[in-house]
Amino acid sequence: MSGYAHPPASFRCRAPPAHQPQTYAADPPNGAPEPSQPCDAPCSAPPPCDKPPKDKPNSYASPPAPGYYPRSAPYGSPFASLVPSAFPPGTDPNVVAGFRLADQDGSGFIDDKELQRVLSSCDQSFSLRTVRLLMYHFTNTNTRKIGPKEFTSVYYSLQNWRAMFERFDKDRSGRIDPNELREALCSLGFAVSPVVLDLLVSKFDKSGGKDKAIEYDNFIECCLTVKGLTEKFREKDCTYSGSATFTYEAFMLTVLPLFVV
Amino acid sequence: MSGYAHPPASFRCRAPPAHQPQTYAADPPNGAPEPSQPCDAPCSAPPPCDKPPKDKPNSYASPPAPGYYPRSAPYGSPFASLVPSAFPPGTDPNVVAGFRLADQDGSGFIDDKELQRVLSSCDQSFSLRTVRLLMYHFTNTNTRKIGPKEFTSVYYSLQNWRAMFERFDKDRSGRIDPNELREALCSLGFAVSPVVLDLLVSKFDKSGGKDKAIEYDNFIECCLTVKGLTEKFREKDCTYSGSATFTYEAFMLTVLPLFVV
Repeated sequence: MSGYAHPPASFRCRAPPAHQPQTYAADPPNGAPEPSQPCDAPCSAPPPCDKPPKDKPNSYASPPAPGYYPRSAPYGSPFASLVPSAFPPGTDPNVVAGFRLADQDGSGFIDDKELQRVLSSCDQSFSLRTVRLLMYHFTNTNTRKIGPKEFTSVYYSLQNWRAMFERFDKDRSGRIDPNELREALCSLGFAVSPVVLDLLVSKFDKSGGKDKAIEYDNFIECCLTVKGLTEKFREKDCTYSGSATFTYEAFMLTVLPLFVV
Repeated sequence: MSGYAHPPASFRCRAPPAHQPQTYAADPPNGAPEPSQPCDAPCSAPPPCDKPPKDKPNSYASPPAPGYYPRSAPYGSPFASLVPSAFPPGTDPNVVAGFRLADQDGSGFIDDKELQRVLSSCDQSFSLRTVRLLMYHFTNTNTRKIGPKEFTSVYYSLQNWRAMFERFDKDRSGRIDPNELREALCSLGFAVSPVVLDLLVSKFDKSGGKDKAIEYDNFIECCLTVKGLTEKFREKDCTYSGSATFTYEAFMLTVLPLFVV
């Protein structure tokens, strides 16, 4: 039994009861939680399969201009090369300066290690894994380079991730515990079961599950992983049955891009 | 269309032609390639779904005693604790000494960092990711500890991984190129498509795909990832149709344990 009907008008982001194998939920609202929306508020209904609503760009950032972030990254293949880009109008000069600082050879692209350096200097330290997952999220390719447009997206998304982390880290411990993670994922539109929640914590907790708490960069990685897997699953679950069928090829091509080495 | 009939008597481990979305293949023969078996030799037929043949233990090692390695790790849940174990009879004294050297507090278990240290001292350096994936492979849990039994399995498996790496690294470059990887995966019983092969190389190549070649520890990680995903997929593909249906819960619980953070 699936945790949502097909298609529901709305549903709540509570973890499903034990007899429900899974609820997975709606289009995440731009990755940024809405402060006025409590976790048990109804989520919007999932959009039709493979037909995302045009008013919901797929980004964890506050877009500098409406429609700036495409719902799907424009690169259809994991092997696609990056298209040169420019900063969107109105980009914060600090963002432009940050990119130019990182792009020392003036190529118009920065790689994973350069992005790691520039992000670490303006926020906190990030693992290469997290940096690469962010790059993947905003390019949908395996290329470990981004241009001005993607860098701007990363920058604004991190502002939202930070705000979200601080919002859900209610005890100000600097780490997200399982309950806080459940609420955070819920605010993004993903209602995972208690078992999946425990698994996420055990995977993304730097202590290997001992602390049962996730630090900031792993929190981003965790949410992006859930988002990536859920969206891929949803693409195959056109009838909202809660089940999806994959060929072996599709299964491998669905899952492998989210493995970050 | 699937690359194998349901169920075939045998099939070949060639990469499928372009019109075949996927072939995935038989029970890997203990993880160790058989020197006398060329890559285009027929693979054995896949075992019945969820009913593995008892004479095929699931290990990448040469077992010190027949039946020592269980086909499936005995821990049914990713949250299970490790059961204390002992060295199997006839274990190489060097293995025992290696474990005792690592287990400094005499607890009977060693953690990921201790395993990384002891492995790096007797073979080459291993990333924590590779070490953790090896631990997962031999425990099927997220606990980052292993006992004497699992340590012995890891030790012997690495002997086979090294032999396999050297066998397929035909140009002695110290790295496995896409063709060599295809042949290595084939020898394990996994025939992946050219697209999946390219994706694997781009993910597990330390250079991010520039070199199109995989070093030893990433080679192990790559093969264990393909093995883990394929076996999970096969569990759901009971009729050998080449397609498998997952609930969202099953999908997440299938894929997430193989993410190594």
